[in-house]
Formats: sequence, C-alpha cells, structure tokens
Amino acid sequence: MGGTKIAAGVVTPEGKILDETRYPTPHSSERLVESIARAIEEVSDGFEVGGVCLAVPGLILAQENKVVFSPNLRAIEGIPLIDELGPRIGVPLTIENDANAAAWGEFRFGAASEEDHLVFVTLGTGIGGGVITHGLLLRGAQGAGGELGHVTIQATGPRCACGNRGCLEALASGTAIGRRGREVAIEYPDSALGRLAIKRKVLGEDVTDLARQGDELALSVLDEAGRWLGIGLAGFVNIFNPEVVAVGGGAMAAGELILEAAREEVYLRARPPSRDLVEVKEATLGPESGVLGAAALARDSSSGEYVLGN
Amino acid sequence: MGGTKIAAGVVTPEGKILDETRYPTPHSSERLVESIARAIEEVSDGFEVGGVCLAVPGLILAQENKVVFSPNLRAIEGIPLIDELGPRIGVPLTIENDANAAAWGEFRFGAASEEDHLVFVTLGTGIGGGVITHGLLLRGAQGAGGELGHVTIQATGPRCACGNRGCLEALASGTAIGRRGREVAIEYPDSALGRLAIKRKVLGEDVTDLARQGDELALSVLDEAGRWLGIGLAGFVNIFNPEVVAVGGGAMAAGELILEAAREEVYLRARPPSRDLVEVKEATLGPESGVLGAAALARDSSSGEYVLGN
Repeated sequence: MGGTKIAAGVVTPEGKILDETRYPTPHSSERLVESIARAIEEVSDGFEVGGVCLAVPGLILAQENKVVFSPNLRAIEGIPLIDELGPRIGVPLTIENDANAAAWGEFRFGAASEEDHLVFVTLGTGIGGGVITHGLLLRGAQGAGGELGHVTIQATGPRCACGNRGCLEALASGTAIGRRGREVAIEYPDSALGRLAIKRKVLGEDVTDLARQGDELALSVLDEAGRWLGIGLAGFVNIFNPEVVAVGGGAMAAGELILEAAREEVYLRARPPSRDLVEVKEATLGPESGVLGAAALARDSSSGEYVLGN
Repeated sequence: MGGTKIAAGVVTPEGKILDETRYPTPHSSERLVESIARAIEEVSDGFEVGGVCLAVPGLILAQENKVVFSPNLRAIEGIPLIDELGPRIGVPLTIENDANAAAWGEFRFGAASEEDHLVFVTLGTGIGGGVITHGLLLRGAQGAGGELGHVTIQATGPRCACGNRGCLEALASGTAIGRRGREVAIEYPDSALGRLAIKRKVLGEDVTDLARQGDELALSVLDEAGRWLGIGLAGFVNIFNPEVVAVGGGAMAAGELILEAAREEVYLRARPPSRDLVEVKEATLGPESGVLGAAALARDSSSGEYVLGN
C-alpha cells in the first residue's frame, strides 16, 4: 500500500507472481478499507489463497494490528485492520511495515536468499529499512523496529521530517539529494543544475538524470549522498554483522553512482571482521519486493517461520 | 576476562554465584591459556558443572571460536580457545564477547528479566553493547554483532580508538568524559577541574567525583556526555523497539547525572511508539553481569535457547 496506489498480487510459494491488480489509494478511511478488500477479492478470484499480508507504510503497533503513524497515508492511521478485513477475507491476515515486508522479500527471493543476516535499506522520498537477523525479521516489542532511516549520523545536521536532526534520511534520501541539488544550483548558476533551477524546482531525480549523463556537479551530489549513506550503513554493519546490505527504492535509479561511495565509507568506518564479510549491493527485486515480501510473510507467518511481534 | 584480571565463577541456574576466583591476566598466550584453565578447574572443584562460557573482550569470530581483535588483551588474539581448553575442561565450552555476555546476564537475571527486547550498553573506557531481540542474542553472521559503541553519531566528530570519527564511544565513553574534562579545565583554569589539572591528568572518574560533589562545570561535562549517549540510544530505540535500554559499566558511577540527559535526548529524537514504550535505566547486576551472563549463556547454549552464530 502506498500514498498513491494499492497493489495486490497472488504469489506462489516460490515467489512467482501469478496475477496482480492496482487500485488508486482513496483518502478516506472507509473507502480505503473497501478498496483494500476489493483489491484482495479481485486478485484472489480463481486461486487457492492460503493467507494475506498487508504491507503498510508507516509505524505499526503489532499488538493492536494498527498503523499508528503514516505521513503518506493518513487515512490508514488507527484503523483496526484485522477486525475490519479479517472476516471478509476469510484466510489468515497479517500486517507488516512495508520496508520490513520488502526486506523479507529480498531475504526469501532476492539479494540475500542464501543468507541468514540481511540489512535492507530503501532509498526513496524517505529512507526505510528492514533487518533479518539469524533468519528472523526484527520487529521489536511493538512491531515498530527496523526504522533504519531515523538513526542520527550527524547530530548537528539538517532537520529531518521526523523532527530529529541529522537522521540518515535527512542526509541521504531522494529528498535530501533534491535539496542538495537545489543548494548547489544556487552556488553554481552556470551549471546544468543551475540552468534547470531557473525553469523549475530541482528534484532528486533531476540530479540522478544529470549524473547519468556525466554531469560532474550532479555526480558530486550523488557521491556526497552515498558517503552519508555509507556512514549509516557502517553503523548497521557493526551492529548486525550481516552477510548482505541491500539497498533498494526509487533513488537506487542512481545505482553505483551512490553505492560506490557508500561502499568506500563502510570499508573506512566499519570494523573487521564484519567489514570484510559484508557485501553492499543493490536489492534485486525492484518495485515487486513489497508484493513478494508480503506474500512470503503471509506464508511464513502461518507456518511460524518468522517471529510475529509477541 | 579482562586486561588486568580473569574472574571465574560457579553459578546456579537461578543466577546465584556459589564460588568465585580471580587470577591476574598473564600477557603471553601460553600462560593465558594455562591461567584460564586453572581458574576454571579451581572454581569448579566440588561442583557439578554443566558447561562453561568464556566472556572475552574484543571481536570474536564465532565460526573459528577465536578472538580476532582485542586491544586490551592482545595475548588472546588468534588462540583456538575451544581446541586448547575444551579437552581439558571436559564439559561443553563456548565463547562470547564480554558485552554480549553481560547483556545476556541482564536479560536473564537483571534489568530486563521480564522482557524479550533489551539493548544493553556498557560505558567504561570504551563503549560496548549487546542486544537481545525477540529473546535471542544478536550475534550476527560471525558472532561480531552488537558493536554499539562504534556507530557514527557525529560524522565530523572526534577520532575514535577504532579509527572512525564520531563514534558513540568517541563522544560518551569514560575516556571521552576525561578528554572533555581536560578541555574545560584549560578553558576554566580557576574551576575545580582547572586546579586539579595543574597537579595531574584529569580522568573521567575525576569529572564524576566532582559532579557528585555538586561542581557545576563537572556536571555540565556529564550532561553533555549524557546527551551524546542519548543520541546513540535514540537510534537504537528506533532500530530495535526494545522494552528496556540498560546502561552499565564503570562510568555508570555517574548514574542519573548521565542518564537523565540521555533519557531527554531519547525522548526528543526517537519516534513513537518505540519512544513511549522504552525504559532507559541503569543495569542492575553491576560488575557481576559478566560472570552471571557467561554462566547463563553456558546453560542456555547447551539447551539451544539462544542462537549460536549460525
């Protein structure tokens, strides 16, 4: 589920998507519940479905099966999703944070399908995360764990959307790249970014597009974002000692233009033996990671293969 | 095991220490192995011992049962401990990082004995850590996980002993408190710290002693260290969504003089619902946490109750 669309899919145990549907996201709570139910019913038709998982943006409170904070999907906040949808769906229903679900997708079918320890970071407008440690999804006491974007890496840094200062998200997200792009556009008015800024607001995507065309200034903005990303990842490597750090999300259109600098910082800042083991790479499932991860969670939560809150 | 002494204890399943012995730490590898073996043999005499766990300072490589990096106990690096000691001890033997062992002690017998999610931080010369998530010790792929002291919280901050810049350890450890004490002593030569600095090198303990006597300048140094600590803890709260964050170690002689500021920063910087759930408090086992935690690990690793490496 996202702020603009709801995607629902039917997935085999092996991770093959058999059918998929998309609905626009309504902005009232009642119509949202109705659209979720219809998306599930429509896509399930003709299949034998064993379970459903809703991957939702924002912070969830697992004990109450509720989303408590979702800046991009306010209509979902506070809805007792299992109570409202469970009886209508008729199969086991679970909810999970979208980045946690995507992490589980990469763990089951993607970047870390051979490993037991994965740190997954999704770089988009914000930064989300999900952690698999010892083969288990790290949900924490309330299901609110894995908020990797909101870890301070520069205490005196810029204000983050969450209210804190210097979060990883405030320095390395697509939004942060766009902001930095606008700053350098002012500093260098004759640059490609500077000329674009006269016409319209420079966004993170513009920086990536120009960088991919070889623009030096845009490349330096991505390099800087990659270094901040690497500073955050180095901490995660020391904390989790994972085999794989996988980075996905829309801002990964920049790929190695961000990841190379991130990898260098991880190597400079993390400690052996963790530093020498870890592979920092792009996530492999792309935009399907959410649907695939949610489906794998629906399957694995009914078989007890992942820790479900409490 | 520490840089100056080896402590060995016999502990009941309920966490009662029946007997204890201490040996000075030898600084050659051969004599170190001999002293460990003798400490275990001496303290075990007359008891029915079911298992032994060595809690060692430094980074371990679980697959090889080796300490790979131990700045305060170089003699232990690279020794194949299980091979050398196992046959002589005659009961199951396991090794664990000392902070991880202490965390397990607090989880079984101390600050989080009722909970499933604990972040434990030990403030001493350095900063160590251990994490219990969903009732399991977070060891990571190689047993090197839980290095909470080496997470960057101020990327442009002071150099850390590990080589990185702006680690939590570089800003909030006993060593960092001492360094900051010496800095303010120069700035304020007429203060108590300033007068002490003429006589000898100001240490972290001096700052704590003066602060406990009500010295304003020393109090401000501890408050500042507490704020840095809180910045790190806030990140851990967002990552782990734990019920308890427990802080132990020698620098906790300062107790609430550090923790109050840390708690304020956690509240300012961490996100709900995690921020509202977590209790940030002093560890309760004191210097016995290592022996108690190691004993609990020896017990729980033979019964498979905690994840052992992979």
